[in-house]
Amino acid sequence: MKKGHQVTMKEIAKKLGVSVSTVSRALKDSPELHPETKKRIVEMAKSMNYQYNLLAQSLRISKSKVLGVIVPELTSHFFSSNISGIQDTAYKRGYNIMICQSNESFEQEKANVRTLVSSQVDGLLISLSRETKNYEHLMELYNREIPFIMFDRVTEDIPVSKVTVDDAHGAYLAVKHLLEQGCKKVAYFSGPEDLYISKKRKEGYLKALSEFGIPASESKVYMTDLTSEKNREVTLAMLASEDRPDGIFAMIDPLAIDIMMVLKEQGLKIPEEIALAGFTNNPTSAVIEPSLTTVSQPGYEMGQIAANHLLDQLDDLVPDEPQSFVLLTTLVPRNSSKKKPNA
Amino acid sequence: MKKGHQVTMKEIAKKLGVSVSTVSRALKDSPELHPETKKRIVEMAKSMNYQYNLLAQSLRISKSKVLGVIVPELTSHFFSSNISGIQDTAYKRGYNIMICQSNESFEQEKANVRTLVSSQVDGLLISLSRETKNYEHLMELYNREIPFIMFDRVTEDIPVSKVTVDDAHGAYLAVKHLLEQGCKKVAYFSGPEDLYISKKRKEGYLKALSEFGIPASESKVYMTDLTSEKNREVTLAMLASEDRPDGIFAMIDPLAIDIMMVLKEQGLKIPEEIALAGFTNNPTSAVIEPSLTTVSQPGYEMGQIAANHLLDQLDDLVPDEPQSFVLLTTLVPRNSSKKKPNA
Repeated sequence: MKKGHQVTMKEIAKKLGVSVSTVSRALKDSPELHPETKKRIVEMAKSMNYQYNLLAQSLRISKSKVLGVIVPELTSHFFSSNISGIQDTAYKRGYNIMICQSNESFEQEKANVRTLVSSQVDGLLISLSRETKNYEHLMELYNREIPFIMFDRVTEDIPVSKVTVDDAHGAYLAVKHLLEQGCKKVAYFSGPEDLYISKKRKEGYLKALSEFGIPASESKVYMTDLTSEKNREVTLAMLASEDRPDGIFAMIDPLAIDIMMVLKEQGLKIPEEIALAGFTNNPTSAVIEPSLTTVSQPGYEMGQIAANHLLDQLDDLVPDEPQSFVLLTTLVPRNSSKKKPNA
Repeated sequence: MKKGHQVTMKEIAKKLGVSVSTVSRALKDSPELHPETKKRIVEMAKSMNYQYNLLAQSLRISKSKVLGVIVPELTSHFFSSNISGIQDTAYKRGYNIMICQSNESFEQEKANVRTLVSSQVDGLLISLSRETKNYEHLMELYNREIPFIMFDRVTEDIPVSKVTVDDAHGAYLAVKHLLEQGCKKVAYFSGPEDLYISKKRKEGYLKALSEFGIPASESKVYMTDLTSEKNREVTLAMLASEDRPDGIFAMIDPLAIDIMMVLKEQGLKIPEEIALAGFTNNPTSAVIEPSLTTVSQPGYEMGQIAANHLLDQLDDLVPDEPQSFVLLTTLVPRNSSKKKPNA
């Protein structure tokens, strides 16, 4: 064991083959446990030189009744829906929430974690910034036994509960739909390659192509940094290409809408000449013309599930072992892709 | 003076006819002041039984370097723009921000104030919920000398600095534009009557009518609670009316978009048969078809100005006397109203 390493309840639990909540109860001298079990755990904790984390203890004992939430950006309808779900759930259970946004910046995200921890929140719900590749700030939370869970933008590197949507399946549904409508050459407009959702949605795109007998070698992936300028540039480049696609699956709705603007401006008929589908189901997508086929992500429900699970952990209603919740996405077919009646 | 009333620096300042920041400097024993002035202020403070507010003092001395922000809702593009302006400004000056949303609930707003104050923020930026008619929670902040300012949804009842937009002028610009395009009967679709912006925008609407020789008695005001259902119902009722308007000014863009959906569904040509204008300049308004004429509110700049002013107050760079900043709005003419070429 490294010098200076602080032994956690999780390590004691692992050593004894019991759950973390059992260790926690033993160290709190809970009457629910068998005295023998309690004794065994307390002795192991002593032998491992466990220092009961005073901060975590004081947080647990004198609860602030506040949860901290960190999201990449608040202008995104998806994240503001997450927050509504978190807030409504927290409020029903007597908690308030404080929100910080990272603005997709790793440094700001670290500052947010520090700020919320200093404010003595009882627990945190975190969605990572685009820049975050290093997870030491989260590992520190974990080691200090400050309860937190991750949602939407998560990392497998930290053993806490996670709530995500089934990105690959949602993309698969959208691309399958385009192919069913008669599209022969479907392109995937992707955000930066290292984004989790870029990869996951590409998986779904390739799976749908493969089901329709189109090999990955014939896939058409267009990359953009998701700025409106670049989205426009890439769309124009695609239109100028020799083997022009007749269907487009865009990674997110705002990208799909930028693409739609260019297609309309260039006089292309949607969906007759090019069909289009997005992913998110932003409010704009329903009112734009033609209305945008998209994949609905349950943002509000994601917030509800994340908040309820964290509060269940705080109230010792569920084991501390990390859970993974994967929510289903659904296809919302609209006029931008419907070539066949009643299809 | 009421029993239990806590004397404030503001009261001492008033009594002596000096500024609050002078009182504050005297009580901090600042070398900038003339010893005589200092003596006079300290004696007055003693005679009034002033208790130097320990919390405010500790906040000022050991700064948390965090500002608290309370907004009615985060799904609104306007408020999320405010927050971006606040956050970017705060970040540049070494501060982080924590955000709470009231969800338009008075109770939640009070809980948010308590939460942020308990978290020892250095100051607050507050935009009121739709329900807030009682300002005791703000008066308490004021009496405790916790620095805060208000933005967008403000009240005249609390003597702190405020940042707002010129609502009446923006509405005037939109309605004048509709009249200039040849509309003869312009309706105003308004939110709940007691909302500050409902009133202010109505002022601008009536002013424009009056300039075009249309008396207030011939104005056409349609009220809605701003839910999509009610917006739809009111629009259908307007279309069924005998003296159908040929132009509509909607109080906010989301309402204008709901109206547009109904007009399109009913086969009305926009702007030929009915011209339409909104207020906010949401991103959807630019991409909808026809694109929506609207009034642009500088949400980001409002956040910047509010944050800079609060931080200036915290750093004693400006006097503590309340300031009022009124930002200008601008007309954004688009296809939903342009009847005349180059008009």
